[in-house]
Amino acid sequence: MSRPPGRKQENHKISRELVVLTYGALVAQLCKDYEKDEDVNTCLDRMGYGIGVRLIDDFLARSAVKKCRSYSETADMIAQVAFKMYLGVTPSVSCSSAAGNEFSLILDKNPLVDFVEELPAERASLCYCNLLCGVIRGALEMVHLAADVTFLQDRLKGDAVTEIGITFLRKAEDRKHKRN
Amino acid sequence: MSRPPGRKQENHKISRELVVLTYGALVAQLCKDYEKDEDVNTCLDRMGYGIGVRLIDDFLARSAVKKCRSYSETADMIAQVAFKMYLGVTPSVSCSSAAGNEFSLILDKNPLVDFVEELPAERASLCYCNLLCGVIRGALEMVHLAADVTFLQDRLKGDAVTEIGITFLRKAEDRKHKRN
Repeated sequence: MSRPPGRKQENHKISRELVVLTYGALVAQLCKDYEKDEDVNTCLDRMGYGIGVRLIDDFLARSAVKKCRSYSETADMIAQVAFKMYLGVTPSVSCSSAAGNEFSLILDKNPLVDFVEELPAERASLCYCNLLCGVIRGALEMVHLAADVTFLQDRLKGDAVTEIGITFLRKAEDRKHKRN
Repeated sequence: MSRPPGRKQENHKISRELVVLTYGALVAQLCKDYEKDEDVNTCLDRMGYGIGVRLIDDFLARSAVKKCRSYSETADMIAQVAFKMYLGVTPSVSCSSAAGNEFSLILDKNPLVDFVEELPAERASLCYCNLLCGVIRGALEMVHLAADVTFLQDRLKGDAVTEIGITFLRKAEDRKHKRN
């Protein structure tokens, strides 16, 4: 109800099949552009970052969520609200550091990789869905949370699940707040 | 009910906002890659063609439509079934030639151009959504219909509507069939 009227009328659904194939065309184009997998990964991450920076407004408006009070809440929010809203899946979340700033999002199924059987041998280091890492990183940055976001496991590379690692980078400012 | 069980389980929805921004990133990348708008347009068309060639199987399986008996029926099918299914919009269709092989799909609203205000001045010849033309061309070719598909009007270029022109290319074979 809180969305501006102009947006409410435009609630067209775009089918997943078209999206998955279009994303595939994007990755294929980058593989043509860059010889090294690392460069493709960097480019996907950078593109994703630009998307995340813009998507966060849409997310905050649509989800109407309150400010998270901990990294743990933030990780849950990403998995349960953002992934559900934008990709239609809900990864499970686990905290993977005693310091409480490292989390894993674990996806049984990655909605962006339909039609992709496995990566070609010469592209073994490609992080096919690295765009997603960039999206998360960009969106978090807009709510003043610096984070490293990378794929830790990938079913496309033969792993049992797809796992995205999020490490929140503690800032000097954070520590100052904690002392107060 | 006729979809294979493996596919039914994967009915995740991907949000339009993410799609539109990802498509924008694709076009921006091509604009980096190619200086000339015409080359970007060609590349988008070629990518779309590859998508259409793969999407047609999904379309035939999901829509369970019968074979069209005329170009007019085919144009209606593209607008009313395919556009609705994949983009969530239904363009209106008009036949624009006495010969009955030229059609226009007219979109009041183009679901791929949200967040795009207008094309930058130096990109005045860019057909931003040319991927769609390629998709239609590729899908038609897989059902043995050769067609030219191009943007005739584009709201991004200041036109009142967005209009995609489809010209079915009559083949020698067609004429032979008609004589029988």
